[in-house]
Amino acid sequence: MADKIYRVNMTDLTSKIEDVPENLAGLGGRGLTSTIVAQEVVPTCHPLGPENKLVFAPGLLSGTVAANSGRLSVGGKSPLSGTIKESNVGGTASQLFAKLGVKALIIEGQPAKGNFYSLHLTTEGIVINKEPQLAGKGNFAIVDTMVEKFGEKTGVITIGPAGEMMMPVANISVKDPDGKLRSAGRGGLGAVMGSKGVKCIAINAPKEATVPIADPESFKAAVKIFAKALMEHPVSGQGLPTYGTAVLVNVINEAGALPTRNFSSGQFEGHDSISGETMHDLIEERGGKTRHGCHAGCVIQCSQVYNDAGGKYKTSGFEYESIWAMGADCCVDNLDHIAEADSLMDDIGIDTIETSVTMGVAMEGGLLPFGDGAGIVRIIKEEIGQGTPLGRLVGSGAGAVGKAFGVTRVPVVKNQAIPAYDPRAVKGIGITYCTTPMGADHTAGYAVATNILKVGGDVDPLKKEGQVELSRNLQIATAALDTAGLCIFVAFPALDIPEAFTAIIDMLNARFGISLTADDVTELGKNILRTEHEFNLAAGFTNKDDRLPEFFAREQLPPHNVVWDFTDEEIDEFWNF
Amino acid sequence: MADKIYRVNMTDLTSKIEDVPENLAGLGGRGLTSTIVAQEVVPTCHPLGPENKLVFAPGLLSGTVAANSGRLSVGGKSPLSGTIKESNVGGTASQLFAKLGVKALIIEGQPAKGNFYSLHLTTEGIVINKEPQLAGKGNFAIVDTMVEKFGEKTGVITIGPAGEMMMPVANISVKDPDGKLRSAGRGGLGAVMGSKGVKCIAINAPKEATVPIADPESFKAAVKIFAKALMEHPVSGQGLPTYGTAVLVNVINEAGALPTRNFSSGQFEGHDSISGETMHDLIEERGGKTRHGCHAGCVIQCSQVYNDAGGKYKTSGFEYESIWAMGADCCVDNLDHIAEADSLMDDIGIDTIETSVTMGVAMEGGLLPFGDGAGIVRIIKEEIGQGTPLGRLVGSGAGAVGKAFGVTRVPVVKNQAIPAYDPRAVKGIGITYCTTPMGADHTAGYAVATNILKVGGDVDPLKKEGQVELSRNLQIATAALDTAGLCIFVAFPALDIPEAFTAIIDMLNARFGISLTADDVTELGKNILRTEHEFNLAAGFTNKDDRLPEFFAREQLPPHNVVWDFTDEEIDEFWNF
Repeated sequence: MADKIYRVNMTDLTSKIEDVPENLAGLGGRGLTSTIVAQEVVPTCHPLGPENKLVFAPGLLSGTVAANSGRLSVGGKSPLSGTIKESNVGGTASQLFAKLGVKALIIEGQPAKGNFYSLHLTTEGIVINKEPQLAGKGNFAIVDTMVEKFGEKTGVITIGPAGEMMMPVANISVKDPDGKLRSAGRGGLGAVMGSKGVKCIAINAPKEATVPIADPESFKAAVKIFAKALMEHPVSGQGLPTYGTAVLVNVINEAGALPTRNFSSGQFEGHDSISGETMHDLIEERGGKTRHGCHAGCVIQCSQVYNDAGGKYKTSGFEYESIWAMGADCCVDNLDHIAEADSLMDDIGIDTIETSVTMGVAMEGGLLPFGDGAGIVRIIKEEIGQGTPLGRLVGSGAGAVGKAFGVTRVPVVKNQAIPAYDPRAVKGIGITYCTTPMGADHTAGYAVATNILKVGGDVDPLKKEGQVELSRNLQIATAALDTAGLCIFVAFPALDIPEAFTAIIDMLNARFGISLTADDVTELGKNILRTEHEFNLAAGFTNKDDRLPEFFAREQLPPHNVVWDFTDEEIDEFWNF
Repeated sequence: MADKIYRVNMTDLTSKIEDVPENLAGLGGRGLTSTIVAQEVVPTCHPLGPENKLVFAPGLLSGTVAANSGRLSVGGKSPLSGTIKESNVGGTASQLFAKLGVKALIIEGQPAKGNFYSLHLTTEGIVINKEPQLAGKGNFAIVDTMVEKFGEKTGVITIGPAGEMMMPVANISVKDPDGKLRSAGRGGLGAVMGSKGVKCIAINAPKEATVPIADPESFKAAVKIFAKALMEHPVSGQGLPTYGTAVLVNVINEAGALPTRNFSSGQFEGHDSISGETMHDLIEERGGKTRHGCHAGCVIQCSQVYNDAGGKYKTSGFEYESIWAMGADCCVDNLDHIAEADSLMDDIGIDTIETSVTMGVAMEGGLLPFGDGAGIVRIIKEEIGQGTPLGRLVGSGAGAVGKAFGVTRVPVVKNQAIPAYDPRAVKGIGITYCTTPMGADHTAGYAVATNILKVGGDVDPLKKEGQVELSRNLQIATAALDTAGLCIFVAFPALDIPEAFTAIIDMLNARFGISLTADDVTELGKNILRTEHEFNLAAGFTNKDDRLPEFFAREQLPPHNVVWDFTDEEIDEFWNF
């Protein structure tokens, strides 16, 4: 069965299943969501109005047995940044979409405010149901309800109360193989889903459904080489599986680039209490799981199951970014407070990075003292979760809280919070923050790999030389990986092991019976970036938006006492490709 | 004594008195503040950081006996809109600056956060005093303190608690001849003053001080013609003196352009309760004053003294904009509630337009019901005044509250709230909202005059024809008037009575011994607009920012059921001069 585009109109509650137009045929994941958004969404529209669209697309390799290929792209115009947005997430939905032959799901229009619906996708098509009884419910309850209704293997995409309230920090959650949650976190796309009146999407594919492979033999061979490389590389084969992404806490602290106390230092004295090593020991001690995959076929298993002190399940998908943001940036050196907050944020449906960085700014503004983990937990639960005025304010993100409290040290680019690497001490990632069309986003071009982890070469993190080129190459490659539906962590072996890189191209060619070259893949990545950049320019962004806040140039970051010293011209070089 | 530029550095608490450079010599008021800001402020800087500057400049005619020439311009980069900003205000400061020979006062740098100072300007220069005991005080207390310290004739410029807290809605207040307040309301310049640690500025000029007049005879003749025209024109000579600016409530309601219930209708059923006619009768009944000038030499006297039901002073400078915003836009049909709020807003130091439009958006978001005047009064007093989280949110303005509450009907341009004329039913003012470098601002090019009041011609308010040209001509003329220090209301006679227009040029020529032509004045106005526009472009604004929110094009406005129907190309024609 040929892939189709599923289109739902929430104004009149109708749906259509359309053939894939030729210009979209070779695209998946981010390449597809960004192209559809660029084609169909008026760049200057209100992100929460009827003219915005929300687009889901599985990657080109999703649904196959290729390792780590189950990532889903979610696209639209962001209510947080006002830019085009692709937010990338694991879970089982991507593979189920692919197996159902859903090339993309496009949600457009909007119903009268306050009405919420579910969508159910099966081989029969799409059913739209009014769900007043689901409104106000947390994400975990939604997953439970859908599983109860449609079975354990059901794919679920859902928003929590924050998405219903259309908060700019609202994310979209996707059920993982064990009924836990993964998040399309950044950019407030949960608010867009809320504005469309879609509370959740359930997906069921027949048990026997598979995606067609044009050349099964070649595919199998490439899959094997690829998986082997993933397991052999020290980062994807050892570091991430053993300690999860939190392995970075000590690494980045040691590098003096762990943003601490609202980006006023590069080292956190409490780093040991929140490190991957400490988390690993705690998990073992409490009978959790140190390894866990966010989707079937993941060989890296960087996720985990974290239990509380009583040995009871508390959270999973407990990532470095979440731990850093509430830990170092808010000076909370208690993993259990962070885990409690993580679980609450997952249930309410808000981005852990944006929310926690916002708390750091609010702490500087005097709302609560640095280190007050219990205070953060209370605000998340009683204020954001309940939609009080304070919750609404914090739910507007770091930029908004900075303005409200008159704070000038506000770490955002294009109004999206800067994640867990201080750009003064990892200058390559600073270029990515400035230039990615997504607003500050480490995943768009993870220069930390080459600056700090020395993967794919060695570029001095404290020097400007080579950073623009590094970020550009990584952003191009990442756009292609996001299109294939591959996890960003496959970049570690792909950068270091030539066979891994070739295997990705071989898998794509064997899947579709095509003959892409490495140059074609690079060109694909470039085209995606250009499409996204042009959308932003048409929305009113300029090169003035490709900048870090001025405090990074003015304030030295201890311990290296470095500042951000790129000129405007140097940054603008990025787009010369 | 030649005019000088007074420059205060709040980082090291020093001041300098500088000669006026040649390129600034012919400028005053807005022309001067905008030129200095464009020359000295990095367009992309953080508005509350050390790189922004706050500039005060009396108009070119301020300090003379020319009628209505005592307006002061305040300039800087706006924390609300991010644009260049000139906010214009009456009171006695402008004339005192001029008499002291202060061409402009520039405040730069910033002290450590939380420290507040007073500046005292006299013939001896500038004294900077640390004033911990003034911090947290309301504007009325500051005026009383300064008068007590330096005498009744002291000019006072002050910020309330909102400015200290650097809220984006914070304004700057200026003492009027009776110790009441006038406000440089728009754009949050009070927050900039707060960021500079300046709580207040006191100005004392010797009693006998005058500004030099190059050709006293010609000046006197022109002054006479000008004053006569002001008194003869029906708007400036009758309507405004009798009913104040609130005369517009019934006029604009009748025109179907009075934004009601957060810009969802053009007529307010409670209009009679808040009209200028009702206010006039109430004032007379309660022993207030129906006529009052905001500065010496004002012949229009559109201000008033409004007493409460017990005959006790409540507020003055009680303007149409304030009455409309809390009245029609929030559906409060009780003048005493509005007067109470007006007085509180003056004391706390917040813009009545931005704050009340914000309340309208918050009402739509469900924070409190439309019509709840007592609720608004409580929020202003207990939340904004106290800097609670809700106060901080509302104090961030209409755009921020719209985002926090997921409201899409948010009437802002460049994040500044749209004032009291719905652009769908007064299309000329819509062009001004879109194109003025200030963010939505009716005073920048008051097309209501020609669209509704039929002053300076007759352009159908419901049609597009002629509106761009009308707004352009008015914006050019207004930039020149703001440079002269003339009240915007002199435009009524200047548009209709040829002698009045000529008299303005004659006064400028006689004052400085120069020979400007009408074309020179037009060129001056154009240059000011170009300077401001270029600052905004360098700050990252584009023509995409010269647009109304999309709801104006989508939602018909009763009773005329009109929409905003200008194309992007038609709006962009504005800058072709």
